[in-house]
Amino acid sequence: MHEQLNFIIEILGTISFSMSGSFAAMQKRLDPFGVLIIAFVTSVGGGTVRDLLLDTPVFWMHDLLMCGLILATSIFSMIFKSIEKNFKVTLFIFDSFGLGLFTIIGVQKGLNLDIHPLICIGLGTITGCFGGIIRDILLNRIPLIFRKEIYASACIIGGSTFLLLTHFTTLSYTFIQIFTILMIVSVRTLAVKYHWQIPKFYGYESNSEM
Amino acid sequence: MHEQLNFIIEILGTISFSMSGSFAAMQKRLDPFGVLIIAFVTSVGGGTVRDLLLDTPVFWMHDLLMCGLILATSIFSMIFKSIEKNFKVTLFIFDSFGLGLFTIIGVQKGLNLDIHPLICIGLGTITGCFGGIIRDILLNRIPLIFRKEIYASACIIGGSTFLLLTHFTTLSYTFIQIFTILMIVSVRTLAVKYHWQIPKFYGYESNSEM
Amino acid sequence: MHEQLNFIIEILGTISFSMSGSFAAMQKRLDPFGVLIIAFVTSVGGGTVRDLLLDTPVFWMHDLLMCGLILATSIFSMIFKSIEKNFKVTLFIFDSFGLGLFTIIGVQKGLNLDIHPLICIGLGTITGCFGGIIRDILLNRIPLIFRKEIYASACIIGGSTFLLLTHFTTLSYTFIQIFTILMIVSVRTLAVKYHWQIPKFYGYESNSEM
Repeated sequence: MHEQLNFIIEILGTISFSMSGSFAAMQKRLDPFGVLIIAFVTSVGGGTVRDLLLDTPVFWMHDLLMCGLILATSIFSMIFKSIEKNFKVTLFIFDSFGLGLFTIIGVQKGLNLDIHPLICIGLGTITGCFGGIIRDILLNRIPLIFRKEIYASACIIGGSTFLLLTHFTTLSYTFIQIFTILMIVSVRTLAVKYHWQIPKFYGYESNSEM
Repeated sequence: MHEQLNFIIEILGTISFSMSGSFAAMQKRLDPFGVLIIAFVTSVGGGTVRDLLLDTPVFWMHDLLMCGLILATSIFSMIFKSIEKNFKVTLFIFDSFGLGLFTIIGVQKGLNLDIHPLICIGLGTITGCFGGIIRDILLNRIPLIFRKEIYASACIIGGSTFLLLTHFTTLSYTFIQIFTILMIVSVRTLAVKYHWQIPKFYGYESNSEM
Repeated sequence: MHEQLNFIIEILGTISFSMSGSFAAMQKRLDPFGVLIIAFVTSVGGGTVRDLLLDTPVFWMHDLLMCGLILATSIFSMIFKSIEKNFKVTLFIFDSFGLGLFTIIGVQKGLNLDIHPLICIGLGTITGCFGGIIRDILLNRIPLIFRKEIYASACIIGGSTFLLLTHFTTLSYTFIQIFTILMIVSVRTLAVKYHWQIPKFYGYESNSEM
């Protein structure tokens, strides 16, 4: 059942990120092949960096289903590009789910390979965030990590909670999985809705060189 | 004979990309060591990412000839920097050949490792394009993938043709190799000459946030 | 004794780069988690790329001490952020030491794996520079490699000297190690103080497209 849940999680995350990449690339007016490349990089970027760091085979290299799914989602997004305007909120929630899903997958993959839990939080954050970071670098956008939205912070908070709950409670693994994914989604969604910000206790002035 | 042809192809591609990197770095007024680094990254970037993804040894790590060749080409470009002005067209064609050569090498390397043909098209595109993408990111230029020129698209078209011809025809391997390389070169050259563009069937307005 | 010296070198380099990353991120007003991520990437970026290229296990993946050290240095930097203003020179020298230390570690690691000495100079340069390059790309700053300071050049000069001395003299290994590290530090420090520049023998005009 575990396996199945993980599988569904990965499918959903891939679709979410593939859509988010496609729309970002269309906004920048790339041609269809360019849109496809950005969709691909956004979907697999985080997991690829994680797998390279862990020295395990890169997850999509033998996975035609995943590649086909990205291709299909990207083409779908190009055809129904109007959905972006009408479903902006839906897409935002989709992207948040991608973030939560991929973060927890990253933490789990590290734990399975006997990496120290603290380092696994880093692996989860990388899996969740790097796809979006690479997308933004390639598209010359303001890097994700800059924006006011709580993004990487949500991964770190969710990943830490996942570890604390698995270590110190007897809750079922599946429950913890779903709970922390929803937690990342909620933290990010609420942060954007209510303009939450992590307090900066160091006090650089606004008019810095940025 | 295969081996020999591949070897010559790799040498020519390396020289082409090393030149293109050197001239881009000189335009940005980097010092000679900086020019050398950019030449190196442009030449080996695509193949390095491909080898990391495939988990095969990185191709230049034990290949002194390749490294020496890049060094020599880069120094040559710095000394005869005037060739850029007088041979702009030659250099463009050189760069297109690099693109074609590296793409087909990437597709072949994937096929040899039993990667699914569709994923091999991706590997070819990565091998052809990533050197230029990393060069542009490091040099703070408008990313390659943005420019109007058909670039990544030429790789995808050429790689697909290569696969179709090897699967469904009985033409000699060497012929298909040369044919698809020339195809990538021609598609790109004609696209630039006649301002071809892949039609965008989704209709974002021009005055987007770009 | 070797081992011990290398260990101390790595600790000092990690602290230096972690500080340099933290201060750069605070200047850009990232939130604390963002500062932590940039500190981490700056410290481990160069060594990570080197280990991926060499196909050896990524050095920090099983090294909790290193990760904890980066975390502690980053938090320390956020709390005592005022030290940046008062100790600007100290921090610059720190960063230069990081550069020297990591470059020599990179060269040594390549030599231990029987990589050709010329390629090891490249590995040393990557180990020294890539952390800072990734930091600048993520923070949207003018890429390191552009700035007038002699940076990558210092690595190449120091790495080459290291190889020449180990091959052609009978000086003790430890002495050569310390000598070349100090050499990289001095070259960079003097270059910044006296506005040294590597002469560009190719003559692009100032008003280029940059």
